Order: sequence, then structure tokens, then C-alpha cells
Amino acid sequence: MEEFKTEIRAGAKLAIALLHYPVYDKNSRIVATAVTNFDLHDIARLAKTYGLVRYYVVTPLPEQRELALRISRHWQQGWGAEYNPKRKAALDLMTVTETLEDALADMRREFGDSVSTIATGAKGTANAVSYRDMSHLLKKDGTNYLLLLGTGWGLTENVLAGSDYVLAPITGPGDYNHLSVRSAASIIIDRLLGEHS
Amino acid sequence: MEEFKTEIRAGAKLAIALLHYPVYDKNSRIVATAVTNFDLHDIARLAKTYGLVRYYVVTPLPEQRELALRISRHWQQGWGAEYNPKRKAALDLMTVTETLEDALADMRREFGDSVSTIATGAKGTANAVSYRDMSHLLKKDGTNYLLLLGTGWGLTENVLAGSDYVLAPITGPGDYNHLSVRSAASIIIDRLLGEHS
Repeated sequence: MEEFKTEIRAGAKLAIALLHYPVYDKNSRIVATAVTNFDLHDIARLAKTYGLVRYYVVTPLPEQRELALRISRHWQQGWGAEYNPKRKAALDLMTVTETLEDALADMRREFGDSVSTIATGAKGTANAVSYRDMSHLLKKDGTNYLLLLGTGWGLTENVLAGSDYVLAPITGPGDYNHLSVRSAASIIIDRLLGEHS
Repeated sequence: MEEFKTEIRAGAKLAIALLHYPVYDKNSRIVATAVTNFDLHDIARLAKTYGLVRYYVVTPLPEQRELALRISRHWQQGWGAEYNPKRKAALDLMTVTETLEDALADMRREFGDSVSTIATGAKGTANAVSYRDMSHLLKKDGTNYLLLLGTGWGLTENVLAGSDYVLAPITGPGDYNHLSVRSAASIIIDRLLGEHS
């Protein structure tokens, strides 16, 4: 079977969490969204490409956790793993948890006690941290980081208020900034860790 | 209905084309891939956010073109447009064509004769252009650009050889770089046009 050498980057360890709850729906009600197949694959492949240490899929709904695990197992075992080892290698990073707290507890257990959270969203806040500053923090040892992404219409105010950092939103030249969570995750991780000339 | 002011950027006009043919399958055979719902939405929203002028969905298969148009119309007319005007605004950029040549002809007709193509891929070539250099070219007037993305296992050698530019591949710290076309499109467009601190 095909193997991949993935150098884990020097500096802080970075993980990503995709929250299906608590997030807003289009009418600003707090809901639990459904797990989406493409979110699992796209973000796992992104995490693997950039040397992230974990991809947490967070949902309080037992049947949704079971669905995420079933999709993951399909590519990690038997026929799926043989057919496409690249998917297996990416999904090996995926861990399904019930809550954000469970994801943080797992990170502390695996990588050390000091973990800070970085929230993301299309609105931003008055004291949002820039990509440049966050990128510098990620080059240092000592603290590890969990990047939080919201499905639906985004993370709730409570999650943002409870996070250690809130990243500046991604904006274009106009007033339309409605990227999919898959696009936003890709751009954010590349801005934080990508190296290009 | 909600409206969006999207300032078209100064400088060259940039459009994006998602090719479903000619591309490789996992065994390096040249195939036509199937249209994927998430590709249509994610890349349309990306194009709208960054002020691109068109999103061409290219496939030689008539029933696949019909499928792409049906998905697009669902969000552009009637119930879908009312339910989610953000999807409508993004899909308004989408044009379905049979061939790459048709997409180029449409661009020339709409925006002027001088159009250069920029191919992308996970392998790169000896004389690949950097994101920085391409970004500078996009700030100039005169020539417009069409960015080519491949579905499946990527654009064929012939498409790469026939393009005016080939962009450097996106790489992480290890030897795994198997991003989805949705992630790759997002990162490439942000590297070329994004402004952040």
C-alpha cells in the first residue's frame, strides 16, 4: 500500500475542528447541522497536506457521529483503503467527538496541556487577530492550537466570545463573502501555514 | 430581494474554468468526469467573493451540461432564488460550455480579444510561474486571464502544454498534496487576489 511521508511542521501543533453545533441557521437560530460527506473528505485532505495533527468532526447527534464514522471506515478499511490510499491517509487524521470540550480534552491528552482556540467567521470582531500575527504564533513552541470552523451560518456568539482568538474574516473586493466552509478552511490554513513565492 | 455590490477589481479580468474533460482518471487514462453539485456551488461562491468575471463549467457530455444548468436554474429562479439569494448571486457567474475553446470564445466576445490561459496541477512543470509573478500580471490592464482547473486526477499534459502559463503546485511540509479541486481553487484564487495582513 502507498505510504506518505508527512513531515509535521516545526513549532506549535495545529488541529482543526468542524463544529456542527452550536451554529446558526439562516434565521440566526442555534441548531445542529447534518454531517456532509464533502466536508469530511475535503478538510481531511487539507489537514493532511498542511501537516495538521488532528481533524475533529464535532456533533452532539449520535446518528450523525455514526454516519461520519461509517464514511471514514469505508475508506480506511478493506476495499476503500486499497482503492484509494490517499483518502485513507487523510481520514486517519479524523476524530469524531460529541462536543468541542471533548475535542480539546483529546488534544491535551495527546499533545500537552496548553491548547488555545482560534475561532473563525465571516463577520469578525473588533479585536480580530491578523493572519500574519497568528502565523507567527504558530511558529513558536509551547502552546498548541485548535482552529474552530462553523457549519451552517457560522459559529455562535458564545463560541466566539469563549475563544482565545478570533481570526479576521476573509473578504473580497465587494460586499459578498459567502464562501463554503470548505473554501474558508482551505484559505485560512494556507494563509496560516502555506509557503509560496 | 437581497442585492450585492461586487466591485470588479481593477486590472485584468480573471475567470475560472472547471474542466471535466480532458482530464486523467486514477490510472492516467483520459476521461470525462461527472459534474459534482459541490463543485458548482463552492467555486461559484469563491468566484463571486473574489470578483471574478465568469465561472465556466466545461463538459462535452450533453446530459452533464443539462444537469449543471438544472442545478443552476434551481437557485436562480423561483423558490431557490427567494430562499437563498446568495446562491443565486454566485451562480449568476456560471456559464456551461462544451469545450475549453467555447469558454475562451465567450471570454473574448465579452471582455476583449487578448485572453491568456493559466493551467494548474499538483505536479507543476520546470518553468512554472510563481503566485507572486502571476499576481503582478493580474494587476495590469490589457490581457485578461482564464484559470484552468482539472477534475478527476487533473488536467492532461496536452492542456498544460497548450496553456500560456502553468502555476506552481500547492505543497505542504510533507509529500502528501492531494487537495480537492474545491480546496485547490480556493487557495489559488486567494494567493492570486487575496489581500490580508
